[in-house]
Amino acid sequence: MAAQRGDGGRRGPGRPAGRRTGAPDTRRQILDAARTEFARTGYSGTSVRGIARSAGVDPALVHHYFGPKERVFAAALDLPVDPGDLVARILAGGPDRMGESLARVFFGLWDDPELHPRMLALLRTLLAGDEAGGLIRDYLTTEVVARLVRELDVPDAELRAGLCGAQLTGVAFTRYVLLMEPLASADTEALVAAVGPALQRYLAG
Amino acid sequence: MAAQRGDGGRRGPGRPAGRRTGAPDTRRQILDAARTEFARTGYSGTSVRGIARSAGVDPALVHHYFGPKERVFAAALDLPVDPGDLVARILAGGPDRMGESLARVFFGLWDDPELHPRMLALLRTLLAGDEAGGLIRDYLTTEVVARLVRELDVPDAELRAGLCGAQLTGVAFTRYVLLMEPLASADTEALVAAVGPALQRYLAG
Repeated sequence: MAAQRGDGGRRGPGRPAGRRTGAPDTRRQILDAARTEFARTGYSGTSVRGIARSAGVDPALVHHYFGPKERVFAAALDLPVDPGDLVARILAGGPDRMGESLARVFFGLWDDPELHPRMLALLRTLLAGDEAGGLIRDYLTTEVVARLVRELDVPDAELRAGLCGAQLTGVAFTRYVLLMEPLASADTEALVAAVGPALQRYLAG
Repeated sequence: MAAQRGDGGRRGPGRPAGRRTGAPDTRRQILDAARTEFARTGYSGTSVRGIARSAGVDPALVHHYFGPKERVFAAALDLPVDPGDLVARILAGGPDRMGESLARVFFGLWDDPELHPRMLALLRTLLAGDEAGGLIRDYLTTEVVARLVRELDVPDAELRAGLCGAQLTGVAFTRYVLLMEPLASADTEALVAAVGPALQRYLAG
């Protein structure tokens, strides 16, 4: 979970900081600016450069503290997952097992007792239908599902991404929010076996 | 939509009415009792006999006004769909096309401009996580999905029903509540082609 690691400070910025140096509150200042920018222009519409401008710092400093945009976002919204890490784990099984890997990684996040309450909060935000929900959907679609679909080189990437998202949120809501049986007590591997092929078809079919 | 047809009065009850005759407010009285009983003991736990007892009428009178329990429920909760009618339409295509038929009937209900707002209200109730939502989930699982699964004679019927429900509510929520593109604007037949095989696998795979 790179978003929580806080690896800023272990290495220097790629190039010298701009108008301001790395004062103790710079990190907080960047996160505040990021929240404002993401809320104002959405995930896709926001750039590291725009966040840096809003925070009054050099873009290299943003990168130094957080890395690329997806990590600035994860840190700003205190998300429980690092999309780059997730994508790498899902792709590791190869293209034919992508649906299965996606299901296993997804339900694995929920099975982690520390992450579970944060996943629950994320799901509720995602489904709230307000600005924050739209922002996170935009982020997850762009940084997770669209990356997987790109890997497969298939048409209708956005529809595929939407169907995968709808499938996973539907099962998660039924299982973890409504606690509806027998889905609520189903074994994770049984769920992976059931939902994995559906996801595979949405991704690659 | 038998629930709205109000065919009570066209034919007499199977046997003479019990303690009370079909006074003008008997229908309302039965519906009030039905709401109380369903809320008290859930859909599966309620019987026409129990509703009749609570309303102080003969069970035959309940059947005369509404038909079997599923129709008493649909009338009491003013549901937009008659499960018997839905199941018949879904089964008409044969077992190998059940997933496709289920998707087509489901999205067809949403496409109907008169039914759309009522489907939206139903979905919101279903996902609310409160007593009413649980009641309607119990009803839909028992009267629609479980019937389809029974037709296929496969194991794990309840898990299959749950997965179909999660799939359909996930897509409906994304498409009709969150209005998330491209799912929100996708052609119904494109959705049937995408979601139908996933449902078929959950039902029969």
